[in-house]
Amino acid sequence: MTFHQEDHKLLMIPGPIEVADDVLYANAHAAVAHVSPQFVPVFGEVLQMLRKTVDAPSAQPIVVAGSGTMGWDMISLNVLQPGDDVLVLTTGYFGDAFADALRTYGVQVEQLRAPVGGRPGPDEIRAKLESKKFRAITITQVDTSTAVLSDIKAVSELVHQVSPETLVVVDGVCSVASEEIHMDAWGIDVIMTASQKGLGCPPGLCIVMAGPRAIQALESRKSPATYYLNWNRWIPVMKSYEAGTPIYFGTPPTNLIYALHQSLKTITEGPVSLQERYKMHREASKKVKDTIRSLGLKQLVSEELQASNGASNSMTAVCYPDGLGAADILPKMAQRDIVFGAGLLKDYKDKYFRIGHMGH
Amino acid sequence: MTFHQEDHKLLMIPGPIEVADDVLYANAHAAVAHVSPQFVPVFGEVLQMLRKTVDAPSAQPIVVAGSGTMGWDMISLNVLQPGDDVLVLTTGYFGDAFADALRTYGVQVEQLRAPVGGRPGPDEIRAKLESKKFRAITITQVDTSTAVLSDIKAVSELVHQVSPETLVVVDGVCSVASEEIHMDAWGIDVIMTASQKGLGCPPGLCIVMAGPRAIQALESRKSPATYYLNWNRWIPVMKSYEAGTPIYFGTPPTNLIYALHQSLKTITEGPVSLQERYKMHREASKKVKDTIRSLGLKQLVSEELQASNGASNSMTAVCYPDGLGAADILPKMAQRDIVFGAGLLKDYKDKYFRIGHMGH
Repeated sequence: MTFHQEDHKLLMIPGPIEVADDVLYANAHAAVAHVSPQFVPVFGEVLQMLRKTVDAPSAQPIVVAGSGTMGWDMISLNVLQPGDDVLVLTTGYFGDAFADALRTYGVQVEQLRAPVGGRPGPDEIRAKLESKKFRAITITQVDTSTAVLSDIKAVSELVHQVSPETLVVVDGVCSVASEEIHMDAWGIDVIMTASQKGLGCPPGLCIVMAGPRAIQALESRKSPATYYLNWNRWIPVMKSYEAGTPIYFGTPPTNLIYALHQSLKTITEGPVSLQERYKMHREASKKVKDTIRSLGLKQLVSEELQASNGASNSMTAVCYPDGLGAADILPKMAQRDIVFGAGLLKDYKDKYFRIGHMGH
Repeated sequence: MTFHQEDHKLLMIPGPIEVADDVLYANAHAAVAHVSPQFVPVFGEVLQMLRKTVDAPSAQPIVVAGSGTMGWDMISLNVLQPGDDVLVLTTGYFGDAFADALRTYGVQVEQLRAPVGGRPGPDEIRAKLESKKFRAITITQVDTSTAVLSDIKAVSELVHQVSPETLVVVDGVCSVASEEIHMDAWGIDVIMTASQKGLGCPPGLCIVMAGPRAIQALESRKSPATYYLNWNRWIPVMKSYEAGTPIYFGTPPTNLIYALHQSLKTITEGPVSLQERYKMHREASKKVKDTIRSLGLKQLVSEELQASNGASNSMTAVCYPDGLGAADILPKMAQRDIVFGAGLLKDYKDKYFRIGHMGH
């Protein structure tokens, strides 16, 4: 049996990312019954390995067919309730979208928005936290639209100091397994992510890690008014797969679970430790950013943030040189079989492009 | 480049089903950008071919990462509203589950439930329809828990005659591309299905076809209170991919879309026409059922229904002989590398097993 990818353009967008051959091969696994003795331990091990990717022995991982977007709905419905006050730190498109999703479910949202390329500072965050009792704060670790990296550790410490009852929710779609995170040690209550970024898988899985306080929030309330997105249905399914005695709610996406299993094995048990993986991302990122600077190009992330570890190590947002735009650069790279991402941020999308450099 | 599946047990459960080599190979496609010129037409063609599988030139297909279960939520939220009266024809577990999902969203459900192995008759259905103005009726074409096949054409005709404003909603998860259906000609307003049954793909895609009256129901109301499941967000995305100018809401599950594309090509353009495909399913089913009878075994579907095309052509539910149970039969088949499905119906699950015979 041989397997190798066909020749293809090198995909360097901030997700989906290039997928390793062994992961693609796992995605082509022959059909298995979702409750069979072959499949059940594979799903169980996926859950165990996911805890390691965010350093959270205490968390309940929830893996459901869906896109990353669905994580916002799950958190809005299961951890929060209509009328809850939530502070959304916004560093780009994805902070705004998270806020939209929360509002859809009747959550009272206040956004603390940084200028493009910046992030809200500790004094602003402290003042907000002191102004009102927020049920939760949300932080996008890497906003894929700007490449701004939030300082999750510092923000979470601040929250625990000023407003310890406030739940800390992290959107880690563009960062898990690329940017350092320690869910338990840093006091994070929920991390949501997806399969197609740092986890190095094809897209199609929504992944959420729920810490003890998030589970408590769910358990202390009336069951959420949703069928497919209800954690009261999914958590028993996850526990049943981990215990080896599967119960049915919806058919799990078996092939993607095989693919994620393969990818997580490399991430958590491969020759490169997670710490070394983070370091390699930092080094690769530094090379890209040094090159960008040496070409005289600017980044979307502010100079100030760049100097204080505020630029993502998983991607880079590069401003086009004066007088040039997407039409001048992206097709030329495509001719060289390299695909970059166009700008995503409203009003700015013609002013920059995005390079992904996460994963294998 | 060679690709073939490893040796594995023959999967004969009523979904997930065995997946053809070329479909698995497509599922291992190298990563592509979800808005790239390679991928966009693939997704567009998937939508066009899906219309053919249910013979519905007028329908809007919606394909979203999720399981079949999610289709119930989508219909509850987008086509219906809280307080709507809905008649659920129940021929097994999946009718009950659809009713549960509807109730979660405040829909007023009446269930017309047949005895196990039967289906509600036309007189009962007519009486119900005359007793109250129902906003919609739901019918499971094949209930995977019992193998009962509903007569969608006859029920839909009856509805259009007695209560023409009532929307006709079909759960086709276990039947699309295996059992005959003509969405437009039979006057069906919504069909929901999933990728892993008759469509011959790995699981992970929720597929809904919305007819003009369903779209009208959505458009004539306040936008549904959901973010990820809101068709007002997804329909423009679907239209944009079909038009070749993609817009972003959530990352589409690119590899599964490639796999579905390959499978749909075989179904809609392969050497076997859809009509011939239905015929082959009927013939294969007849062989299985004749063998079951010649062994002196009974089916869960009533004798009466068996005699009137009321048993599924995609699967068979077989009662264990007196004195024997799951422990006597299923492990012996597994030793011969054939996997059947255990019983699914509450109170009956130790009394029968299920053989899937849909797809390639």
